[in-house]
Amino acid sequence: MPNTAIETNKSTRVRDFNNALNRGVPTSPIRLMLNALHPAEIAHIIESLTPDKREIIWELVDPEFEGDVLLHVGDEVRASLIKKMETEDIISATEGMDLDDLADFMQDVPSSVYKAIIQSMDDQSRLRLETVMSFPEDTAGGLMNTDTIAIRPDVTLDVVMRYLRRQNEKIPENTDSLIVVDHHNKYLGTLSLADLVSNDPTLRVSEVYKQEPEGITATMQETQVAHIFTDHDLISAPVVNEQGILLGRITIDDVVDVIRDDAEHSLMSMAGLDEDNDMFAPVISSSMRRAVWLGVNLLTALMASAVIGVFEATLEKVVALAVLMPIVASMGGIAGSQTLTLVIRGLALGQIGFTNAKSLLIKEIAVSLLNGALWSIIVGCISIFWFGDIILGLIIGAAIIINLIIGAVSGIGIPLLLKQLHIDPALAGGVVLTTITDVIGFLAFLGLATIILI
Amino acid sequence: MPNTAIETNKSTRVRDFNNALNRGVPTSPIRLMLNALHPAEIAHIIESLTPDKREIIWELVDPEFEGDVLLHVGDEVRASLIKKMETEDIISATEGMDLDDLADFMQDVPSSVYKAIIQSMDDQSRLRLETVMSFPEDTAGGLMNTDTIAIRPDVTLDVVMRYLRRQNEKIPENTDSLIVVDHHNKYLGTLSLADLVSNDPTLRVSEVYKQEPEGITATMQETQVAHIFTDHDLISAPVVNEQGILLGRITIDDVVDVIRDDAEHSLMSMAGLDEDNDMFAPVISSSMRRAVWLGVNLLTALMASAVIGVFEATLEKVVALAVLMPIVASMGGIAGSQTLTLVIRGLALGQIGFTNAKSLLIKEIAVSLLNGALWSIIVGCISIFWFGDIILGLIIGAAIIINLIIGAVSGIGIPLLLKQLHIDPALAGGVVLTTITDVIGFLAFLGLATIILI
Repeated sequence: MPNTAIETNKSTRVRDFNNALNRGVPTSPIRLMLNALHPAEIAHIIESLTPDKREIIWELVDPEFEGDVLLHVGDEVRASLIKKMETEDIISATEGMDLDDLADFMQDVPSSVYKAIIQSMDDQSRLRLETVMSFPEDTAGGLMNTDTIAIRPDVTLDVVMRYLRRQNEKIPENTDSLIVVDHHNKYLGTLSLADLVSNDPTLRVSEVYKQEPEGITATMQETQVAHIFTDHDLISAPVVNEQGILLGRITIDDVVDVIRDDAEHSLMSMAGLDEDNDMFAPVISSSMRRAVWLGVNLLTALMASAVIGVFEATLEKVVALAVLMPIVASMGGIAGSQTLTLVIRGLALGQIGFTNAKSLLIKEIAVSLLNGALWSIIVGCISIFWFGDIILGLIIGAAIIINLIIGAVSGIGIPLLLKQLHIDPALAGGVVLTTITDVIGFLAFLGLATIILI
Repeated sequence: MPNTAIETNKSTRVRDFNNALNRGVPTSPIRLMLNALHPAEIAHIIESLTPDKREIIWELVDPEFEGDVLLHVGDEVRASLIKKMETEDIISATEGMDLDDLADFMQDVPSSVYKAIIQSMDDQSRLRLETVMSFPEDTAGGLMNTDTIAIRPDVTLDVVMRYLRRQNEKIPENTDSLIVVDHHNKYLGTLSLADLVSNDPTLRVSEVYKQEPEGITATMQETQVAHIFTDHDLISAPVVNEQGILLGRITIDDVVDVIRDDAEHSLMSMAGLDEDNDMFAPVISSSMRRAVWLGVNLLTALMASAVIGVFEATLEKVVALAVLMPIVASMGGIAGSQTLTLVIRGLALGQIGFTNAKSLLIKEIAVSLLNGALWSIIVGCISIFWFGDIILGLIIGAAIIINLIIGAVSGIGIPLLLKQLHIDPALAGGVVLTTITDVIGFLAFLGLATIILI
């Protein structure tokens, strides 16, 4: 399912703004058009523009939306926007931010602004912010908000509703349920608004609420939180400390961001990119980041070249080997990448571990043998036809089978090994894999040729 | 952020079941352990097991969970489980499924079972199912449920609450708001449960509800629905037809699945894999699917070989060229893949179109020039040091700069072109790109060498 439709829609908007800016349309109609959008949509447009156009558009954003827009752009774009804002504008942008969002935001502001924001807060808000910021950004504690509505089990539903009416307007966003706690603030369960409105108001909370004694602990990793939300189809869930005391609540909107980031992370890492990077980052910093990745890959290419270098004498005699050798390396690399991608996804989903890796290995080797048999015959025949040399055809066929098997074994072994070493398999897996399939591909093909032909 | 924690948690569970099955633990404790889990977690375990173990575990699943488990496994695993079920078991598994889930499920059952399920339904349910199934699976209509609670604007909140109390227990899951419609069932807006309980019960719905005249139309693509949900932080949203008549409602849990599938789709496509494939699919069918991809890649490798073949005479004279040529091809391929991945993500997010592609092209070419300058000097020096030939160093340097620029141009041009041709850029982009960087890499390097050295 290619994302054709949404792109048409969203990129039409990007195109409209781009064209308006290019044609030098006066700013007032652009401002109107811009501020009619949702802050997330404004953020999307800003990310899609080049830095010079971003500055023009950013000036036109209604100050009351600035905070929300800043929350919706990627880390790198956010930092570049903040850099150009006055401290007081930044402070006013933070007003009304959810606590978890504010905690994230605080990570990106310069320390002088940080202090100014803290000073602008009242004691209660500051204490709450410090609670959230005391947990790492990628844990449940870092994702949570402390704006929970907690109720006691011994009151009637009618009392709860009267309490809510007194709150009016102040019920936090995405509140689908109230949290039931005892008088020590210990988490007991939840009362959904649906149950609240659909039951007899004279019933007590204790007769209606859902007991779910295990809340999400604040130190749980955010990816695990995401799995719990999706597995249990949750909209919000309470966060507790190790003693089961209620600390706050996580809502699905923040979890959706985690899911999206996680998935993008695998895609981008496999090309040595960071999902938070700005598409239009300055050339110098982009180049430096890419250079690291190219350097790593150069090392692997040099290893492959070194292997070829060993067989210089052979290549001098049979130049057809130089023509055919990239085929062996690339078939192994492609087959290995398929296995690797399967395993990287399986690891991310928690579906592959050492217990079932063996079964997967057997299956993948069987697949390699079948495909090796098929493609070694085809490539062998092509080689015989091309260079009129049957032995050459047999050699390349054997080398392809060997390299496909190595590809399967590496595709499974490398990510598992990298994980044991606490290296991100999505980031380093591809490089290590192609190094191995290149080296083994050249070694098998040129080595066999040296033994047999020379 | 590598997914270490969640994996430990989830794969621990997979390991426990694997070990229990391997050790031949009696089935009753396994059954207890299994049915204490959420159906999504059972599905996860089934997906992680080999087909023979899956059968044992599937037999132990409590019949009342079977439907939910079937909904949570991937398409391919689902088909294999259904194949072994009795028709009546399948029918009882579908009872209690949400309509959108049932509609998806119906796509995968054999036609005899399909008919039996339809016959087992009452008229109203059948009509509702047919409504949902009349829309393609990947549109808002295919995602929606018809179990909405609709209310009129002219009644008081108190009346609404009394109505809900009469429904009791029957309020659909994930109901965070009620849908307000006129007497023609035309969608007017929503009344959140939070607003319902926190306002004076004597107020009328019309005084409290949020007017949002634009609902999601049933024909909207699901990826666009996902963007609307995430941009606007929605939990549920009404679906309307082109006349604005309420058809149903989409809830966030289904949207989360779309988001996850979309993201996985890019990752898996880039390796020529399908995100719905079963990790433990039979060897024969896995091999055949992989063979297609290997065949496509063989064609590209043959093209590269054909280019090398043109320069056989040159290679015979200067065998060092054969040693160094993979470096030129691989540097171009790596640099190009980075640009390609950036563009594929940008296209999926709707951030790249023809208006800003030019700005991106300029930036990426600048990055290539800088990195080309850096790495051509380094590789040039290595070559001079290795083969003691300054001219060779200059030639490989020039070839690297050329190939990095080609990589950047292709990385932007190929996905845009494929999109115009309605080919999924994530699927075909990588193959086309490496074909170009291989061909140009060998052509530039060997061509320059032939002109200068020979």
